[in-house]
Amino acid sequence: MNNAKLAAKSNQQQSLVQISDNVTFGREEIIIIGGPCAVESYEQMETVAEKLHTSPVKALRGGVYKPRTSPYAFQGMGETGLKVLAEVSHKYNLPVVTEVMAISQIEVIAAHADMLQVGSRNMQNFDLLKELGRAGKPILLKRGLAATIEEFVMAAEYILSHGNSDVVLCERGIRSFDNYTRNVLDLGAVAALKQITHLPVIVDPSHAAGGRELIAPLSRAAIACGADGLIIECHPVPEKSVSDAQQALSLEEMIDLVHTLVPVAFSVGRKISNRKVLSRKCAHY
Amino acid sequence: MNNAKLAAKSNQQQSLVQISDNVTFGREEIIIIGGPCAVESYEQMETVAEKLHTSPVKALRGGVYKPRTSPYAFQGMGETGLKVLAEVSHKYNLPVVTEVMAISQIEVIAAHADMLQVGSRNMQNFDLLKELGRAGKPILLKRGLAATIEEFVMAAEYILSHGNSDVVLCERGIRSFDNYTRNVLDLGAVAALKQITHLPVIVDPSHAAGGRELIAPLSRAAIACGADGLIIECHPVPEKSVSDAQQALSLEEMIDLVHTLVPVAFSVGRKISNRKVLSRKCAHY
Amino acid sequence: MNNAKLAAKSNQQQSLVQISDNVTFGREEIIIIGGPCAVESYEQMETVAEKLHTSPVKALRGGVYKPRTSPYAFQGMGETGLKVLAEVSHKYNLPVVTEVMAISQIEVIAAHADMLQVGSRNMQNFDLLKELGRAGKPILLKRGLAATIEEFVMAAEYILSHGNSDVVLCERGIRSFDNYTRNVLDLGAVAALKQITHLPVIVDPSHAAGGRELIAPLSRAAIACGADGLIIECHPVPEKSVSDAQQALSLEEMIDLVHTLVPVAFSVGRKISNRKVLSRKCAHY
Amino acid sequence: MNNAKLAAKSNQQQSLVQISDNVTFGREEIIIIGGPCAVESYEQMETVAEKLHTSPVKALRGGVYKPRTSPYAFQGMGETGLKVLAEVSHKYNLPVVTEVMAISQIEVIAAHADMLQVGSRNMQNFDLLKELGRAGKPILLKRGLAATIEEFVMAAEYILSHGNSDVVLCERGIRSFDNYTRNVLDLGAVAALKQITHLPVIVDPSHAAGGRELIAPLSRAAIACGADGLIIECHPVPEKSVSDAQQALSLEEMIDLVHTLVPVAFSVGRKISNRKVLSRKCAHY
Repeated sequence: MNNAKLAAKSNQQQSLVQISDNVTFGREEIIIIGGPCAVESYEQMETVAEKLHTSPVKALRGGVYKPRTSPYAFQGMGETGLKVLAEVSHKYNLPVVTEVMAISQIEVIAAHADMLQVGSRNMQNFDLLKELGRAGKPILLKRGLAATIEEFVMAAEYILSHGNSDVVLCERGIRSFDNYTRNVLDLGAVAALKQITHLPVIVDPSHAAGGRELIAPLSRAAIACGADGLIIECHPVPEKSVSDAQQALSLEEMIDLVHTLVPVAFSVGRKISNRKVLSRKCAHY
Repeated sequence: MNNAKLAAKSNQQQSLVQISDNVTFGREEIIIIGGPCAVESYEQMETVAEKLHTSPVKALRGGVYKPRTSPYAFQGMGETGLKVLAEVSHKYNLPVVTEVMAISQIEVIAAHADMLQVGSRNMQNFDLLKELGRAGKPILLKRGLAATIEEFVMAAEYILSHGNSDVVLCERGIRSFDNYTRNVLDLGAVAALKQITHLPVIVDPSHAAGGRELIAPLSRAAIACGADGLIIECHPVPEKSVSDAQQALSLEEMIDLVHTLVPVAFSVGRKISNRKVLSRKCAHY
Repeated sequence: MNNAKLAAKSNQQQSLVQISDNVTFGREEIIIIGGPCAVESYEQMETVAEKLHTSPVKALRGGVYKPRTSPYAFQGMGETGLKVLAEVSHKYNLPVVTEVMAISQIEVIAAHADMLQVGSRNMQNFDLLKELGRAGKPILLKRGLAATIEEFVMAAEYILSHGNSDVVLCERGIRSFDNYTRNVLDLGAVAALKQITHLPVIVDPSHAAGGRELIAPLSRAAIACGADGLIIECHPVPEKSVSDAQQALSLEEMIDLVHTLVPVAFSVGRKISNRKVLSRKCAHY
Repeated sequence: MNNAKLAAKSNQQQSLVQISDNVTFGREEIIIIGGPCAVESYEQMETVAEKLHTSPVKALRGGVYKPRTSPYAFQGMGETGLKVLAEVSHKYNLPVVTEVMAISQIEVIAAHADMLQVGSRNMQNFDLLKELGRAGKPILLKRGLAATIEEFVMAAEYILSHGNSDVVLCERGIRSFDNYTRNVLDLGAVAALKQITHLPVIVDPSHAAGGRELIAPLSRAAIACGADGLIIECHPVPEKSVSDAQQALSLEEMIDLVHTLVPVAFSVGRKISNRKVLSRKCAHY
């Protein structure tokens, strides 16, 4: 990893990446992000936020620009979805993470969201990475489907070297020969990344598992392994999700899961705590 | 492959993709593209063109915008390189193929090159694909490092469904566990693609092999398997190549290789012939 | 997993596999196996046992028949090594696990060891599996380098259906494209195996990691994920190990690691406890 | 490949492996082996031999000991099948290749067959390999599902170093992430093996393809790439095959395919010719 001048551990100790007043990646606290694969409506997102905002879930996810294998599949709500995210975020004081697929989307997403996600398919979209170096917003960089650890770190280096030091890495499973799971969650990569870079590293067990019954054990494993956070798909009515229905937890399952993570975090010297609901909403009125 | 409405074989018979007066993919003739990984200077490209333009090599390749793992590696000559490509192309009447990495590069590349290549890392950069649907130039779409055959065809479908029917697919090796070769050339995919789509399919043995000694046998195999063309790296002084030095053939090796392909093409009912040098240059003066 | 008649979860609840008076896989207690890759001498094994026998490590490992890529590499001490294992096992009341590579070795290994390990390369050596069905000793079956979860379960089914119900499965990493780790530890497979079979499942983080600095986080992850045990390589002087030197922990590192696992086990409702040293040795004299 | 003392190219030029009076691997002539996955009856094998013995197919294949993922699947006809193979072989003067799964089978198979095949699952069953070093019969060694090129060559080295120099290597596809084909045929490995070892190398396109429509193009590619032979599954009534039904060619398809290979072989300086039917049968009566 000789070439990673800025991402390398030697450069500095653990980076902290703050995405809102009370949400910072890289501290003792494990940050859990929850929400649906895609933003489908205001009602959907409000149901999610209402249910989660008093739990240890600290941020919302929800895609509005969706990278889909087929051009004929649902491509996301676009800017309308961004406004939904922003409103719900404001009401419940939950920062939001959403995917950016193109340079042309950066400005509008940055205006509405707290963190911009680069999806696996764009991990080596170097032009996008360079521009995100100038975006002025924290970036959640997902590992490519078949990216080596070195390529992953060097993708982060593109963002860092173009001016943005707020990068969080996300392991989400790699391609393999077995179909039982959708992807193979590579927790060895999480451990390695924590050792070779100073960037926070989180885990997406939902895309790795591809089925909801594996999400809980993989989430616990991720925390025990040293991950700084989790990003987990959940939906008010999983079987009605417009995409990735099999891997979304119900909101009740999400909350149950999160509570089982508390002792695991504690066992490795970390913590997960309920949000103190001194929300913007309260402050607002 | 249910969703590929436009790329599917059932839609039409073999597509022809013409990139210049005398170069069309999808006919009986095998199209061979040669040239360096990166455009380094006018002299370099002219040496290549001068040497190849009377051989069966029908088009030039050369990158000017280079997708590099590290942000600190040579990123290509950019627009200056495009002008080099255009001049040499004009002088020797050899159409040129070069990689487009970003929407912002489409216009200038389209003004100078005959075919725009989408690299492996951008195979699912859907925003770029959509825009290339409106580029008005033929596209060479390389398979992603770990893309399934279905994902590859659906990436082509993005371009086709946005208005551009001139798409050539390129198999260039997939990631595997063995380090002996750089990637595993998947000729089963070539055979499959020829059966399920009507698009021309070519093969890049250079990136698959990662070492020059495997390029000749893999080139012969690709043609025997039904490929419509080859794209092969060659350089006036391979050991001085700024990138991928181990996999570039010398110009002499390139010409020797191409001549061994002639009988193989013939054995499967195809042909490879020398260029008739009624070049633009001749017509010009 | 339709064909797994005997290994399938539906057949029975969690199986218990007992290998000695006080070591049973599948209970609340996590079983930790430690020891060198290969048995090298009596002194080596005694040093290991002396150091570990009062720690939470409950069983010894050590290969005497070694499957080596090269026929010219050290092939193991053979029967002499078995006697070393048996003596040390007896002295410290630590059951021993060792690999069986051939039918001809079953009888002698079964006479000296408490559990017979089938290595990754032999996971589908069906003749060996059938014979182990009649061996009358517990079997530790390691997953093949590129075995699907179904193939792994069906390999166990070969042993079960030939009469031996004492089978423990072991995930030890699968082959992947990245060289940073030796193999990719597939904890999703561990979670899946716990859900679809009633057999105990343990994890070998040493062979997955290939480097000692990843073993601790992967061990914690394995336990958090639901594994019933761990098998970890350690050596009195790791740098002098005749094989796999980079991945062996020192005995001090081993003990330190094991102690960090105690709270993780507790956090998921399991336990790891020190051995009560009412050893055979004590009882004996 | 430093450790391959006997298999390495430097040791000698191209090895010749003769399995019968008129069938030798490693010469100018491409050797084609055909036959069903499993021997099912005398009638089946005689139909195959009767149809193929005047074609360029030079040897028969057919499994009698079958390595099956499930212990409940058909395990092969065993010794009865061997007798079928021997009778048909004698009648049509076609040497036979069949798989050996265990040391205990070596003697009886060697008594009835001309070449013993080691299947992919046993490529690193070192005990079997050592014993085959003393078998006195040519060995067809198939590459493991996820074996590196080095591991493959070193597996051959086990046989060579135990006294048997008659080893033919067989590439049959490696595991990958894509399901379109059963395995990815790695012709780069074939080219590499021809360069680094002096052993004959053949290709099994049937197991790689997993579907009959890809077998013809992959067979042509294999020959163009430098393979010394092919082993292809065919069956009198493919849809009634007890195993691998989708990948077996009908006998007519087999003969048609073989004829398309003749010009490809010629194009790379090799040859495929019809058998001269001066068979043992003729000599016999």
